[in-house]
Amino acid sequence: MSRGSASGRAASLDDADPLGRFRSRFVTVDDVVAYLDGNSLGRPLAVTPARLARFAETAWGGRLIRGWDEGWMEEPERVGDELGRIVLGAGPGQVVVGDSTSILLYKAVRAAVALDPSRTEVVLSAGDFPTDRFVLQGVAAELGLTLVAIDAPPDGGVDPEHVAAAVGPRTAAVVLSHVAYRSASITDVEAVTAVAHAAGAAVVWDLSHSVGALPIRLDGWGVDLAVGCSYKYLNGGPGAPAFLYARRDLIPRLRQPIQGWMGADQPFAMGERYVPDAGIRRFLSGTPSIVAMQPLRDMLEVIDEAGVDAIRAKSERLTAFAVELVDDLLEPFGARLASPRDVGLRGSHVTVDHPAFPTMLPALHRRGVVPDFRRPDGLRLGLSPLSTSFAEVEAGVLAIRDELQVAR
Amino acid sequence: MSRGSASGRAASLDDADPLGRFRSRFVTVDDVVAYLDGNSLGRPLAVTPARLARFAETAWGGRLIRGWDEGWMEEPERVGDELGRIVLGAGPGQVVVGDSTSILLYKAVRAAVALDPSRTEVVLSAGDFPTDRFVLQGVAAELGLTLVAIDAPPDGGVDPEHVAAAVGPRTAAVVLSHVAYRSASITDVEAVTAVAHAAGAAVVWDLSHSVGALPIRLDGWGVDLAVGCSYKYLNGGPGAPAFLYARRDLIPRLRQPIQGWMGADQPFAMGERYVPDAGIRRFLSGTPSIVAMQPLRDMLEVIDEAGVDAIRAKSERLTAFAVELVDDLLEPFGARLASPRDVGLRGSHVTVDHPAFPTMLPALHRRGVVPDFRRPDGLRLGLSPLSTSFAEVEAGVLAIRDELQVAR
Repeated sequence: MSRGSASGRAASLDDADPLGRFRSRFVTVDDVVAYLDGNSLGRPLAVTPARLARFAETAWGGRLIRGWDEGWMEEPERVGDELGRIVLGAGPGQVVVGDSTSILLYKAVRAAVALDPSRTEVVLSAGDFPTDRFVLQGVAAELGLTLVAIDAPPDGGVDPEHVAAAVGPRTAAVVLSHVAYRSASITDVEAVTAVAHAAGAAVVWDLSHSVGALPIRLDGWGVDLAVGCSYKYLNGGPGAPAFLYARRDLIPRLRQPIQGWMGADQPFAMGERYVPDAGIRRFLSGTPSIVAMQPLRDMLEVIDEAGVDAIRAKSERLTAFAVELVDDLLEPFGARLASPRDVGLRGSHVTVDHPAFPTMLPALHRRGVVPDFRRPDGLRLGLSPLSTSFAEVEAGVLAIRDELQVAR
Repeated sequence: MSRGSASGRAASLDDADPLGRFRSRFVTVDDVVAYLDGNSLGRPLAVTPARLARFAETAWGGRLIRGWDEGWMEEPERVGDELGRIVLGAGPGQVVVGDSTSILLYKAVRAAVALDPSRTEVVLSAGDFPTDRFVLQGVAAELGLTLVAIDAPPDGGVDPEHVAAAVGPRTAAVVLSHVAYRSASITDVEAVTAVAHAAGAAVVWDLSHSVGALPIRLDGWGVDLAVGCSYKYLNGGPGAPAFLYARRDLIPRLRQPIQGWMGADQPFAMGERYVPDAGIRRFLSGTPSIVAMQPLRDMLEVIDEAGVDAIRAKSERLTAFAVELVDDLLEPFGARLASPRDVGLRGSHVTVDHPAFPTMLPALHRRGVVPDFRRPDGLRLGLSPLSTSFAEVEAGVLAIRDELQVAR
């Protein structure tokens, strides 16, 4: 299967794609016909290799320690502000970049539950990504909190009414994902935040599976805290730094327990006692990787140029096309759509379940088709709006069809 | 001041330097005549820019998500094992790379004090680096522990006898630095570890200011836990990942509170409950930056080729030469050596105090001389054995002499 054999339909969708010109901005590789895992690891931009080399040669190698006084010290907030402006709907001074999503989630949850120590419950989704549940299990164990798990329908988002039924005067925090990692179901952040706030609870949102692909309005939605990763639709590279948002008026009341010097008020005062930075830097601990932030900077510029609304529009067209192909080509073999049918409830990936999928990845890789596998029997087709073509979607689903034929 | 004007003494020391050939392995830059801050941020290797570019182009861009199955997943332990073998004196399976020093120190201390919750005191040095003290203040505050600070002499290491006087049946952990960040004083890790163990306490060592420059024998010294950074003598780049060591027999009993999926037994099982990895990976939380680990890998190879004992021997010659020049050229202006005179008690930097130093950095930078400043009035001359020449040491001290003359 190659792009040359794309149907007229895929080709005409690509021809009509107003964002099609962005595809050439990314590194591509000959042995991958359809990369459908940009939601696990986005492709590098074509400028990224040279950007990294230049950074090492002229910034690190050329400025040496002086680089810290010439901008690196502020890089976590500067890149954070850009994230806020371009993809998070957040005004400046509320986003910081560093650590990993798990670490920042730990800090965010610890800060959230400390706001009112008389509240002893944390609400989460039983279907959330493992790290979210694991981190919460750890926090609950050390602080003696009770976890209240909402059973979201496997293919659906977390319903505000389910949250309303779970929260109460004992709820310290509600911790949920904007887009579900397996089904791509969207949870209504604004509505759930309002429900939590009505019960006097704080919210912590994990945006890992939405940021860069869906419009986000953290300030407008009244969110308290949020975290997310930058290696999916933000194309930051394997293990790229995460980000944390905290609402401006809340920051002075938020304390996190890992008191490193980079989060201190005056790191180089070498003072006797830790005093947290007055602003969002209080969520930093150690020295963040400046090298690892470089790819993200370029990608944010590209997203800014394309515009998040246009990106979301293409994402909807991509997943709608994928669902159509799944219905036409895979459903006859017994495959089942495990993502919402309503495009408005669906993030930027499409998951399909079939008993033959657990062993299918090697064969698909040999065909140059790279989706993701998610237990127990799902293939997850991640459609990264700026780098994925309709032809790739078609090539991918056709290859899956061919393998189902072989498996039959 | 340029290398051409180096005295016969510096030139002959460089000529006789068996490690002199390694200097050309590093990126250099024309406007820096003497880089004396390799202990804050080591120079990049000359191969680093291309290494990073190649990683982005062919590993990240070429293998895409498949990279995780083809080696990245094990990278934190593989690089950790190399660190163990080459610079830490640690057998395999005991070192992991990721996060920052502050984060890993938090995890290490939390794990150490949890070994015996009936013990409620942590011993530290009042003169330790801020992040170490700050992290401990945070842990003490959240767990209700008491910090017991040892007053080490400002120019000296922490004496085993001082530690013996501070530990007792209530001591949960002793947390100290191998080499002091300001004075470069060496603390005898083996002796202090034995003192702590005799009191039934665990030890957590911060190796940030020694690793890569001094011989370390973590297994041989019976150390429980250790952490350190990789951006100083390991030349990993600004904010490069940190490392954590835990002694093999202790690992099964160690638990850290940030339960992310990368530290779980089977990350992709997406299981219901967090079960820590059986080995050293239990100290991981989120996805570590694979990009940011690449420079460190090359530097470890270079250190392996040179040998840590030869590196230490050159470090001793460099600091001895620096002390000699300080005595000859700066002492007449009232400058005072703030590092141990005994080379055996001194790490790989030399700190000199003078009331004129707090405002001197800009003038030194204009002369192409880049040391570090440490409060209240110290210039810290960091001598990175593989990249620093004797001519640089001389050029640096001469420039400081010239500025002291101007200031008089």
